[in-house]
Amino acid sequence: MNVMKLLTADLSYTKRTFLTVAIIFALGFTFHTTAMAQQQDQIVRVAKVKVDAGQLAQYNKALKEQMETAIRVEPGVLSYYAVADKKDHTSITIFEIYADMASYKAHIETPHFKKYKTTVEHMVKSLELTDVDIIGVAKKPGM
Amino acid sequence: MNVMKLLTADLSYTKRTFLTVAIIFALGFTFHTTAMAQQQDQIVRVAKVKVDAGQLAQYNKALKEQMETAIRVEPGVLSYYAVADKKDHTSITIFEIYADMASYKAHIETPHFKKYKTTVEHMVKSLELTDVDIIGVAKKPGM
Repeated sequence: MNVMKLLTADLSYTKRTFLTVAIIFALGFTFHTTAMAQQQDQIVRVAKVKVDAGQLAQYNKALKEQMETAIRVEPGVLSYYAVADKKDHTSITIFEIYADMASYKAHIETPHFKKYKTTVEHMVKSLELTDVDIIGVAKKPGM
Repeated sequence: MNVMKLLTADLSYTKRTFLTVAIIFALGFTFHTTAMAQQQDQIVRVAKVKVDAGQLAQYNKALKEQMETAIRVEPGVLSYYAVADKKDHTSITIFEIYADMASYKAHIETPHFKKYKTTVEHMVKSLELTDVDIIGVAKKPGM
């Protein structure tokens, strides 16, 4: 609070305290609305993929490589969860989060995404994309 | 490395170095296999819920309350993502991760889960649960 003391040096103690509290609230509000706006901009998508059983291992390898590269090199690719139905590993669901529409559009133009698309072209039997809105997220720290 | 120096004080420099490296590898391997075993024990589930349109707001409120309470009070409930189809908000997908089967079994016996089930009983038109295996997870730190 040394900065606040300097800025409000010629004010009374009460006024200084009031101003400090007001600025803290304003900053808090700004951070809060920024975080909310960021979440509202997010593109969240559920992809359901049906994979040819004979090429499942190759498909999973290409998928993981795409996911890991995108997360590493693209700032706007935020998270991927890829899961397979326990009873039928060829039924795959991918849960994807991008920072915003610009990040998503940039993503589908990257070399690693294009390589993935070409690699899996003849492995994917069907693909269903659903754009979704987040209702809620609750998780342990670090999850 | 003071502990290692103490333990290996009467050994030659080469032997001491070798032992230190071996112990570091052994510890690393233990941590690695523990982390892998933990992930293998996880119960991951995708729940698809179709909600009565007239009761959607109440359903979402009950769902969020259940999710947040479970994450806060149950050590074995690791994460929930709840999303709604952008084109039809009554089509909800919940992505759930529990630490292991014991955590999941304990979860469905908790008062907050039972309260949720009773509350939403007449709001849910259909429910489809799919147990899944994780193929891969890639995400930015903090996501």
